[in-house]
Amino acid sequence: MVHATNDAIETRKLRVGMVGGGREAFIGAVHRLAMRLDDRIQLVAGALSSDPERARLSAADIGIAADRAYSSYQEMAKAEAARADGIEGVVIVTPNHMHAPVAAAFLDAGIDIICDKPLSATLQQAEDLARRAAKSGLVFAVTLNNTGYAMVREARAMVASGALGKIRIVRAEYIQDWLTLPIDADGQKQAEWRTDPARAGRSACLADIGVHAYSLAQFVTGQMPDAIAADLTTFVPGRRLDDNAHVLMRYASGARGVLIASQVSPGNYNRLSLKIYGEKAGLEWFAHEPEVLHFAAFGEPARTLTRGGPGVGQAAGSVSRMPAEHPEGYVEGFANLYRDAAALIAARRAGRTPDPALVAAVPNIHDGLAGMRFIEAAVDSHENGGAWTTIAA
Amino acid sequence: MVHATNDAIETRKLRVGMVGGGREAFIGAVHRLAMRLDDRIQLVAGALSSDPERARLSAADIGIAADRAYSSYQEMAKAEAARADGIEGVVIVTPNHMHAPVAAAFLDAGIDIICDKPLSATLQQAEDLARRAAKSGLVFAVTLNNTGYAMVREARAMVASGALGKIRIVRAEYIQDWLTLPIDADGQKQAEWRTDPARAGRSACLADIGVHAYSLAQFVTGQMPDAIAADLTTFVPGRRLDDNAHVLMRYASGARGVLIASQVSPGNYNRLSLKIYGEKAGLEWFAHEPEVLHFAAFGEPARTLTRGGPGVGQAAGSVSRMPAEHPEGYVEGFANLYRDAAALIAARRAGRTPDPALVAAVPNIHDGLAGMRFIEAAVDSHENGGAWTTIAA
Amino acid sequence: MVHATNDAIETRKLRVGMVGGGREAFIGAVHRLAMRLDDRIQLVAGALSSDPERARLSAADIGIAADRAYSSYQEMAKAEAARADGIEGVVIVTPNHMHAPVAAAFLDAGIDIICDKPLSATLQQAEDLARRAAKSGLVFAVTLNNTGYAMVREARAMVASGALGKIRIVRAEYIQDWLTLPIDADGQKQAEWRTDPARAGRSACLADIGVHAYSLAQFVTGQMPDAIAADLTTFVPGRRLDDNAHVLMRYASGARGVLIASQVSPGNYNRLSLKIYGEKAGLEWFAHEPEVLHFAAFGEPARTLTRGGPGVGQAAGSVSRMPAEHPEGYVEGFANLYRDAAALIAARRAGRTPDPALVAAVPNIHDGLAGMRFIEAAVDSHENGGAWTTIAA
Amino acid sequence: MVHATNDAIETRKLRVGMVGGGREAFIGAVHRLAMRLDDRIQLVAGALSSDPERARLSAADIGIAADRAYSSYQEMAKAEAARADGIEGVVIVTPNHMHAPVAAAFLDAGIDIICDKPLSATLQQAEDLARRAAKSGLVFAVTLNNTGYAMVREARAMVASGALGKIRIVRAEYIQDWLTLPIDADGQKQAEWRTDPARAGRSACLADIGVHAYSLAQFVTGQMPDAIAADLTTFVPGRRLDDNAHVLMRYASGARGVLIASQVSPGNYNRLSLKIYGEKAGLEWFAHEPEVLHFAAFGEPARTLTRGGPGVGQAAGSVSRMPAEHPEGYVEGFANLYRDAAALIAARRAGRTPDPALVAAVPNIHDGLAGMRFIEAAVDSHENGGAWTTIAA
Repeated sequence: MVHATNDAIETRKLRVGMVGGGREAFIGAVHRLAMRLDDRIQLVAGALSSDPERARLSAADIGIAADRAYSSYQEMAKAEAARADGIEGVVIVTPNHMHAPVAAAFLDAGIDIICDKPLSATLQQAEDLARRAAKSGLVFAVTLNNTGYAMVREARAMVASGALGKIRIVRAEYIQDWLTLPIDADGQKQAEWRTDPARAGRSACLADIGVHAYSLAQFVTGQMPDAIAADLTTFVPGRRLDDNAHVLMRYASGARGVLIASQVSPGNYNRLSLKIYGEKAGLEWFAHEPEVLHFAAFGEPARTLTRGGPGVGQAAGSVSRMPAEHPEGYVEGFANLYRDAAALIAARRAGRTPDPALVAAVPNIHDGLAGMRFIEAAVDSHENGGAWTTIAA
Repeated sequence: MVHATNDAIETRKLRVGMVGGGREAFIGAVHRLAMRLDDRIQLVAGALSSDPERARLSAADIGIAADRAYSSYQEMAKAEAARADGIEGVVIVTPNHMHAPVAAAFLDAGIDIICDKPLSATLQQAEDLARRAAKSGLVFAVTLNNTGYAMVREARAMVASGALGKIRIVRAEYIQDWLTLPIDADGQKQAEWRTDPARAGRSACLADIGVHAYSLAQFVTGQMPDAIAADLTTFVPGRRLDDNAHVLMRYASGARGVLIASQVSPGNYNRLSLKIYGEKAGLEWFAHEPEVLHFAAFGEPARTLTRGGPGVGQAAGSVSRMPAEHPEGYVEGFANLYRDAAALIAARRAGRTPDPALVAAVPNIHDGLAGMRFIEAAVDSHENGGAWTTIAA
Repeated sequence: MVHATNDAIETRKLRVGMVGGGREAFIGAVHRLAMRLDDRIQLVAGALSSDPERARLSAADIGIAADRAYSSYQEMAKAEAARADGIEGVVIVTPNHMHAPVAAAFLDAGIDIICDKPLSATLQQAEDLARRAAKSGLVFAVTLNNTGYAMVREARAMVASGALGKIRIVRAEYIQDWLTLPIDADGQKQAEWRTDPARAGRSACLADIGVHAYSLAQFVTGQMPDAIAADLTTFVPGRRLDDNAHVLMRYASGARGVLIASQVSPGNYNRLSLKIYGEKAGLEWFAHEPEVLHFAAFGEPARTLTRGGPGVGQAAGSVSRMPAEHPEGYVEGFANLYRDAAALIAARRAGRTPDPALVAAVPNIHDGLAGMRFIEAAVDSHENGGAWTTIAA
Repeated sequence: MVHATNDAIETRKLRVGMVGGGREAFIGAVHRLAMRLDDRIQLVAGALSSDPERARLSAADIGIAADRAYSSYQEMAKAEAARADGIEGVVIVTPNHMHAPVAAAFLDAGIDIICDKPLSATLQQAEDLARRAAKSGLVFAVTLNNTGYAMVREARAMVASGALGKIRIVRAEYIQDWLTLPIDADGQKQAEWRTDPARAGRSACLADIGVHAYSLAQFVTGQMPDAIAADLTTFVPGRRLDDNAHVLMRYASGARGVLIASQVSPGNYNRLSLKIYGEKAGLEWFAHEPEVLHFAAFGEPARTLTRGGPGVGQAAGSVSRMPAEHPEGYVEGFANLYRDAAALIAARRAGRTPDPALVAAVPNIHDGLAGMRFIEAAVDSHENGGAWTTIAA
């Protein structure tokens, strides 16, 4: 073995709390795994459920002291802000419609935010939140976690370096099959809230997974489309929101794109991918095989870049824990985001100007807002028969 | 080894002629390879070039007797129709704009047609040709050759059998990179005519490759979209026609589709693929790995069906020459089309009603016309800002 | 999202110490990542280096209190055994030659062991250690970590269930390229000790990686060969031990196998794989794509089983944290081993009889000893011209 | 489309006859497909079966004139040698044990030979035949057809160019599953003769497929092992010969190899592969994905070389018919061998010294003999308990 693995180099860990993520939740536990990996963050408080008994039990499950197990996020924000050893950041992993009110409460309490995607259930919430966040000066990270994969970081650095030349074509996909049958009508909890307009917003499929594809493309290319045409479909009878989305995209630069999101494509569990073609070269990345990046300079043989392997640069190397082909995966990508977000929070609290590379690496409220504007424009386009629709800037 | 390989079972071979396909041409030689493979067709006449000297030399190259080497297709049609041993079919492999006049001449001469795609350079030509062909009662096969792949035939049979349930989503792509640079402006002959409106028609990328993706999807699903929104782009400065196309598709059945064609995507040489998702299962096929079909019934492990291997039915088996994993490829798929087209011609000439399965297997002038209507609608949509556009039925 | 993710369900964490794994070491940090993932283990003491200053700094790096940062493992064993809050288990991550003396010291102190592979530098050490461990009644886990991958657990369950029928053929490989050049002679520390007979033992390549392939095969098939013929080679001039190994294997059951280990195969970073063929079916698994298992029942289409996906059983499910295609990797596999080893230690300390499935899941000193006997027989065979050699039982 | 496709450039075709390959045979029809592809060879005579009625019908099936349909190869050799328009070459596609007597008869008649592999059923036959062939001065091509794949030719050129540096490791495999069950005992004809010592020789698995892997490795590396240790197994009860073979190989150059052949590995239909690692780089090729070559120079990203694509040289280019990713396969590789063998025969008959590159490209009787010596040594090793055994030079 030849590679070094980074341990936490500071024993001082960031203290965080969590809102949402109690028993029966899915993504909260993923966040906890991710924040544990590098040992720089400790979870010390939580409002894991609005049901007091469930909040108490859920907190006990994961070692949160009873006096810091809240059933009200408002109470938690106040109490923690008042403690000398109070939380330094809050992780928000509720259903979409609660992101904005919870985040607002913690912004008001002066606590930095790490919020799950999509930023909110409505664009209005998102815009309001963006204003509040800007005013606050606090860190507002959005866990568009796929940007944390080492080879996604590498892809972005390659695009930025000009290795592809001017970008011409962007193709992003997120394909699943778990909503092929009407499980939302059958009481499956994860399906239920994600397809409920009151909790998910105007879109299910785009809000749940399409926004990941959108943000991945934006992160790697550094560009956002300014107009889209969207064809949203609800294939499963009785479903309240879209379960499939086909979107054409036009960029101000002249680039063109296609974004596809589907939750009804049998045989695909979580197939997120990004393909980018420029004047000089093409790049392809697949989240279910995240360790490799396919790069082809026009007129040269295709190359497979492997995390930890030869020819891979600092962008991937700096967030790499294992040697090549000791596969890293979803947790490591998520943990990279947590590590960087924690570093941003620590810098802000210390009054230090953070490394611009660090700032650029962490999706923030502007990225979250961009995702909401994309969803809004897509639903508008859809409701207008699939017409081309400008995305608000 | 356990598999049998079919030889020609009739020693009587169909006599055909070829128009186009002389020296410096590309696709004519491919057609000749394909027609040779099964030894059921003999090429005995040709108007391989309109330049008399090149026509003569090109014919000599490939063993066509001097007295049947024509430089005028009109002359060839007349002369061959008059011979007792005249050609029984003609293969048309000229640039697009000549398909219609050449085909018309041979229809008039009572000679069955095997014509390269796209059917013509303009929709009007295509519609006129369809009327003539219908009146003639002759066979009019269009070499949308990808329908000949064994596993494409299998895919079609699986869809028809209901294995996927009702189709929801269709995704077809044909991605290349050979036009990444302005080689059409630099005198590359293949590039030059394919991007010339006078010879290619209203679209380059869709006419050259998009129509393959379209027809493949149509062949396998048995459906055609009734409305599309197309975003065509010309990325290379100075190019006269599109080199990239993103198309959304809506089907009368409620299905939705995306079709992508690109000739400027570095690292892709000929990446044609089709993905279909239904209520019960999904199917994925990739032309550069044509021997396998990826099938996933919802709730079951994904299966890889290999041509010649277990679980593959008659649709593939009947057009299979080699055991599993002795790879068949492009030529075999093309040859399957030739074998079937030759059988159709032989049946018509003998006054026999052909096997309906055989009729269904060979793309005909209606399929060719459908491709032209797709191109027309796509260009119309594009010229109308990417608006949703109905495809003529 | 539909899958649940397990958090630690007990807040009471196992207290462990570590010997080896200080600054500049590689594998110690990997162990720490793995033990952190599920939050059931806390690292509270360490003899991370025999150099006092490095031991102190290394401990500080990772948050071990200064009074529990030892530079002598003997001292650590004594001191920790004497503390009321002393460690309940020790993790040994030194170079090979120190495994046995360190383990012996902690066995003497009554502390359960988690020891890196290979078990020791010499077979004699291993046998002595096995006797001591047996006498002690303590848990002795060996971190043959690849057995922890979810789909390896699944593979093992499938073999045990009879899905493959009687096993005929076993093929195991571990292929790397990092020793292609003489970096051991150039002072690369990881290369240096691994190719040093005094620290690595009689073999470098087999001890470092071959033993992983061997144990993986043994874990999944439940069988060990009783005779082997080995062709070991040292390709790089000046290297002191083998860097490539080809081994034929015969099993008492009649099965036959091939094991290949190489550290000089350019383009392979960590390509560990296992292929097993039985009378009824075949199984293939690749550690660099660990999330899928390729299964083919004879006469049926090949199936791809995906962790978290349909058709995958309890063996994988019980050690799965993420939904399908949110890739898990090396750390998760390693963490599964830690979780299970910790559970075994907790059970032993509580006087509970552990679940037999748990016992079976954790490679123990017998497995470690089997690996040493394999290495011994391979080197004996090699020194005897590659002759067939019986493995001691 | 940008690539040219070669047609036959001479209208004068080589006249050949065939021995074996009648109805119910497998490989004869494959040979016929291959020889048809380039239109340079015409099959005009045959002794397709020793049964007169079957010989007659089989000949009629494939358009051989009745007066040149023989039931005796001796008669055919004499009659054809006496005709002014007699065959110029003979293709031998009988079961193994007939290769030598048939070849001898045609050598005696002064007719050049294209003979299927393995060269014969016994080493003695092979050596006798080699002597006769040498004396005759005739062309004796052996259809070790995998050497004809474009990317195998490319691999060989890369090795010869020094791109890999000195070769260290050779790994060749040919894995099938069609003999998993006792179909030979159940009357399956292809299985029956291949497992019959009287017709197949001393080995079934090595003679049928192992020799392909052996010759592929030899062709690409330019080296043959001088000692091997073989572990042959007959897994299926009642089978008369081996159905699985594991072989270690040592080369005079210091290189080491492993060769694996199996006909009882469920899920593998025809998985032939070659991996070669040198001091500077590694190469991997898989016959079921024959269009790509995986190349990794140590310390550089892995490259995928695609036939017809960038960075691929003349060795592949000169035997390439289609553009990149219009897949070529088994037939094209086989046809390349035929084209080259026909060119050799034409040169000999014309008294021309053939291009040395052409000579090197066509496996000849020495290669066939080398294959037989490999089989002989492997069976000797096996019968001697798997001991290391020298291969006769």
